[in-house]
Amino acid sequence: MFYREYTESIMQQQGFLTPLFNPASIAVVGASSKKKNPGNMILSNLLEAGFKGKIFPIHPEAENILGLAALRNLGAVAALAGGKAPDLAIIAVPAARVAGVLREAAAIRVRAAMVISSGFKETGRAGAELEREITEIARKAGMLLLGPNCLGFINNQAQVNASFSGSPALPGNVGFFSQSDSLSSALINWSQSGNVGLSAFIGLGNKAMLDESDIIAYLTQDKNTRVIAGYLESIEHGNRFMTQAQLTTRQKPVIILRAGSTAAGARAASAHTGAVDGFDMAYEAAFKQTGVIRARYTEELFHLARAFATQPLPQGPGLAVVTNSGGPGIIAADESEKSGLTMARLSEHTIDALKETLPAFASLYNPVGVTNNADEKRITRTVDIVLQDPNTHSVLVLITPPNFTPLEKITESLVAVFKKHPEKPIFCCFMGGGNLVEAERSMFKAGYPCYRFPEPAVEVIAAMYKYGLWKKQPLPVEVGYRREINKAQKIIYAAKNSGEYELGQPQAHDLFHAYEMPMLKTKLARTSDEAVQIAKQLGNGVALKIASPQIKHKTDVGGVVLGLDHPNAIRSAFMEVTAKAKRLRPDAYIAGCYVQAMAPAKSHEMVVGLRRDPRFGAMIFFGFDGINQEVFKDVSCRIAPLSLGDVQAMIREIRAFPILGGMHGQRSINFVALEDILLIMSQVAQDFPEIQEAICSPVLVSDRGAVVSDVRVVLAK
Amino acid sequence: MFYREYTESIMQQQGFLTPLFNPASIAVVGASSKKKNPGNMILSNLLEAGFKGKIFPIHPEAENILGLAALRNLGAVAALAGGKAPDLAIIAVPAARVAGVLREAAAIRVRAAMVISSGFKETGRAGAELEREITEIARKAGMLLLGPNCLGFINNQAQVNASFSGSPALPGNVGFFSQSDSLSSALINWSQSGNVGLSAFIGLGNKAMLDESDIIAYLTQDKNTRVIAGYLESIEHGNRFMTQAQLTTRQKPVIILRAGSTAAGARAASAHTGAVDGFDMAYEAAFKQTGVIRARYTEELFHLARAFATQPLPQGPGLAVVTNSGGPGIIAADESEKSGLTMARLSEHTIDALKETLPAFASLYNPVGVTNNADEKRITRTVDIVLQDPNTHSVLVLITPPNFTPLEKITESLVAVFKKHPEKPIFCCFMGGGNLVEAERSMFKAGYPCYRFPEPAVEVIAAMYKYGLWKKQPLPVEVGYRREINKAQKIIYAAKNSGEYELGQPQAHDLFHAYEMPMLKTKLARTSDEAVQIAKQLGNGVALKIASPQIKHKTDVGGVVLGLDHPNAIRSAFMEVTAKAKRLRPDAYIAGCYVQAMAPAKSHEMVVGLRRDPRFGAMIFFGFDGINQEVFKDVSCRIAPLSLGDVQAMIREIRAFPILGGMHGQRSINFVALEDILLIMSQVAQDFPEIQEAICSPVLVSDRGAVVSDVRVVLAK
Repeated sequence: MFYREYTESIMQQQGFLTPLFNPASIAVVGASSKKKNPGNMILSNLLEAGFKGKIFPIHPEAENILGLAALRNLGAVAALAGGKAPDLAIIAVPAARVAGVLREAAAIRVRAAMVISSGFKETGRAGAELEREITEIARKAGMLLLGPNCLGFINNQAQVNASFSGSPALPGNVGFFSQSDSLSSALINWSQSGNVGLSAFIGLGNKAMLDESDIIAYLTQDKNTRVIAGYLESIEHGNRFMTQAQLTTRQKPVIILRAGSTAAGARAASAHTGAVDGFDMAYEAAFKQTGVIRARYTEELFHLARAFATQPLPQGPGLAVVTNSGGPGIIAADESEKSGLTMARLSEHTIDALKETLPAFASLYNPVGVTNNADEKRITRTVDIVLQDPNTHSVLVLITPPNFTPLEKITESLVAVFKKHPEKPIFCCFMGGGNLVEAERSMFKAGYPCYRFPEPAVEVIAAMYKYGLWKKQPLPVEVGYRREINKAQKIIYAAKNSGEYELGQPQAHDLFHAYEMPMLKTKLARTSDEAVQIAKQLGNGVALKIASPQIKHKTDVGGVVLGLDHPNAIRSAFMEVTAKAKRLRPDAYIAGCYVQAMAPAKSHEMVVGLRRDPRFGAMIFFGFDGINQEVFKDVSCRIAPLSLGDVQAMIREIRAFPILGGMHGQRSINFVALEDILLIMSQVAQDFPEIQEAICSPVLVSDRGAVVSDVRVVLAK
Repeated sequence: MFYREYTESIMQQQGFLTPLFNPASIAVVGASSKKKNPGNMILSNLLEAGFKGKIFPIHPEAENILGLAALRNLGAVAALAGGKAPDLAIIAVPAARVAGVLREAAAIRVRAAMVISSGFKETGRAGAELEREITEIARKAGMLLLGPNCLGFINNQAQVNASFSGSPALPGNVGFFSQSDSLSSALINWSQSGNVGLSAFIGLGNKAMLDESDIIAYLTQDKNTRVIAGYLESIEHGNRFMTQAQLTTRQKPVIILRAGSTAAGARAASAHTGAVDGFDMAYEAAFKQTGVIRARYTEELFHLARAFATQPLPQGPGLAVVTNSGGPGIIAADESEKSGLTMARLSEHTIDALKETLPAFASLYNPVGVTNNADEKRITRTVDIVLQDPNTHSVLVLITPPNFTPLEKITESLVAVFKKHPEKPIFCCFMGGGNLVEAERSMFKAGYPCYRFPEPAVEVIAAMYKYGLWKKQPLPVEVGYRREINKAQKIIYAAKNSGEYELGQPQAHDLFHAYEMPMLKTKLARTSDEAVQIAKQLGNGVALKIASPQIKHKTDVGGVVLGLDHPNAIRSAFMEVTAKAKRLRPDAYIAGCYVQAMAPAKSHEMVVGLRRDPRFGAMIFFGFDGINQEVFKDVSCRIAPLSLGDVQAMIREIRAFPILGGMHGQRSINFVALEDILLIMSQVAQDFPEIQEAICSPVLVSDRGAVVSDVRVVLAK
């Protein structure tokens, strides 16, 4: 994905969500004195959070709600304020009445509406129709719309708690959004007990108008948000999301947990919000291409958010572990290798200093063992020494129950030493229950992430290191490809007009010729004499392939013969192939045989494909042809348009990559030639949204170059 | 691995660890009045736990320690008790003095000793020598020895806390052992806060005499232990461990966390206990073959232990999720698919009953959504209905913060309904912090596992389901293979006597012929005329392969020519191959060419190998030959002796297995023939411990059979 003109549109948007998230005045339609009612909870949350602006409860009869004078309708608010509408209308009335309220809001020019009410798309067809209706009202009025079916939002900086969450969120610097209300409530609870402070919390609800891309754009601009984290089941507009994420991740980390990635999960998600979306490969590709960090399990979302919120990024892969224990140190070392970090190689200077500090039997090498009778002085001195080593890029302090030194003493002095090294990321792991909970809490308060097991701590450090590498990468640049676009258009339009959805082989070849795609020379021979003739022009041996629009899988009818050299051999192969095809497929029109130049020697057979995803657009696939792809699913995938960086990553990502680099004395392939083929495919995908699927298979790559043998192009119906 | 005679030896051992873990009297050598001293902590732990037998503190000067009269030495104990020695001597004196104390203990016939003291193998060479010395003393005296360098043990049933742990362990039914002291302390702490009750805790220390196999044997017999769980860095005697684990897992689950599985971890482990052990593949195979459940991360060890300790095994894969929330239900569904469970398909009867219970918009299908305003009655009624469905094999109740019903009410009524269904495993997940901690605790107390995130809950259920399947499998039966053992012995002994470590090709072929291994017919031709002669005998085309003891990789010198039919072709190939080999490898002795029958058509090239691991003995490998093995590491591995079940599992475990089953209209291979080759390899491994490595490559398998083309056999030096 590319930077493009999107920056401009972002700049126009600067502050476009202010009326929603930072309103000067709020009306609550459906406010209520009844406890346990959303309209009551939101109003009381607004009051409790200390919102500084005006709040107008709207109720058809009540005089006074929670100490505020109630008004009859939105019109009354405007009348009271000299014609000025409230910035934000929160709507918590039954679904059937929402459209009416929104029309009222539109009439007095309310700038933003949030619909809490459920009973829309998530309930089925009638609800979906209702949702379409309210969205249209908002769109026509130029009114922002959050929800429906959402928990609300919290903006801690502006002291707005416009949610019906049972507890307030701890203030902090993580901006959270969520497509699930229940996960949101859990999250807000956690923010309290786990000391993960939030700058903002935003429930997305059904995303009728505003979606994750808007919220990410908003949180990117929000100065109080250092980390963006979210839970999603689906992404509404793949392209917008990617363009936004590409920009945001260069400034702040974006961490996303996506559920519904399996068939079972997708079925459950579809029952939940009516979203049908099972193609996880597109999500995976989108996250990779935009530097979004994907949490693999729920707890990791919180682990990651807490770490990014408090610690600087590691400047290298070197992890130093200081521990009073053996086993857990080994576990941490195992995990560092598994997750792509390295155990820092401590300098001689450091080892000498450790020798002076630690007893004779202590392990001086990383993991550094302070032995289990270490007191707080020995532990902190060791940590201090290790942190000074230039090879130490991050530190994990791993403590198991000490029998002799009270843990409070240890944590207190650790924090003092940590503060001396603000430039390096520092993590703790206190293992065991009981008094460790207190120690954990005091570490959280001091701003250091603390874990109960070594593995998640190390995984989090690895994720931060990888994000650091991503952040340094320049924004990708679009590569233009020369092409005869008129010629290509003619081919596509002709096919569309003819009502044929699959291009004939000559047309498909011509299309790619228009893109200067390197293709194996191929010509149609209608007679065996013509075949001999063509073979003479091509030289050096040819292949014959049956030519029939009805026969898709040529080998199934014995329709491919390779390595033909002699005119007689060509002639008899032609007769045999066409005769067999006629016999096996009496239905098929046999046009003759394609005569094709033979593949270069010692080439690998690859596949390069294009398939269109309904949300993300054209996905480009790459892998070895045949069994590797089928059995090992060894395929890489990115979403078009591809940058050169994307293409290079795709090629290196397949597990069979070492084969391409040259094994057993074979030469490395010509990577530039292969990259070009992928980039051309991306160009084709962009030029023709009509193309639903295109497959180059096999693509023959060798040390000398890359060339496409066969192509197949299918248009969207 | 097989059942064999081991049962008998186990029966003899019945109760052999009683003097250690259930002693009538205990002497504590190195008892002390000084707080924070291990000798003091152990004595006070013994007293606090309420040990009913006699305790004798031993100290050179003190009169009285913690209220008990101190004795001068072990001899004095025997004198006092009329010549009767204490059952157990706990030794907590400096390392240098341990041998002396053990000699005293041996002299008065103490039956068991536990050495707490550190300063042995873990400190280096001198310590290792000291450890060897004390082990010899114990062995000669027939005295059991636990440790040295260990935290001690706790036997909750017998009220023995012979450890210097800072806190006592909660009583329960999990038997835990650990090779790491620090992890042990953490664990004992956890048992308190996490309500994972322990029947016993045993620190293994350096495992000078007693090791994990003994402890597993003991815990298998222990009636109070329902689940065996442990932390290991290494296994001392692979074969003993496997024989024991094979028996135990048919009765009780054994859950093991093994650290040191990566190179970095192994380095750290080596610094920790002096154990050098990096070959994780052998561990993985041993666990698979014996039904040991491997915890993949530290927390999982506890998750699994708690679940197995309290819940029955699921009788099928069908998981039903009841939840008041959308998102987390989807996450659970995702995880069930990933971990090999299925979302239970609820019966029509159940759906009808749910319709009556749940509001109109609730999701009736699994995950069953009770909607977020559900009170305790609706939740419990739903759980009750779902539990009655025969398709429900396990249930996960997933609750996120409810705004309206106090959680205590929900947990209370849930427990009541759970108790009605003791035959099905039931799990809870309460998400969020705050008041959920209390709810979690009351679930623990009621005996239901409770998690904070859906993923670990589902993973645990999947592990229990898989263990249930394992438990039902009959013990494997040994398959005897006919062989001319004398002929085989002659070949091996001749090679050993000659000082050649790699068998020549004729010898290797003869060895496998003695096992009736199907081999491609191969004969040595010393001249081109002989080659033609042999080819005539073999018929139907042959291959020529250079014959030279010095040339290991024949293709590197162009030493392999396939598909030779005509006498002239054979003759000229012979000349060419030998000439080229002479030119490229002037150092090599060229004996001529092997003439080999051609491989059957359409066969797959596989590899079957044997490699000896220092701890586990012969490992048998299986996979596709070539790139799949090299790039995808698609190899399965088991430890010999193999049962038929092992072999079948090995073949099905490789990812490329579908190819063997027949893809794209190809026929399935002859599996019986392939199984035989693996079983013969296992037989060879058992017969000749001298063989360090043996590789059959390629093994040609097709629908008609399997045959070995080339073999390589290397003896141990």
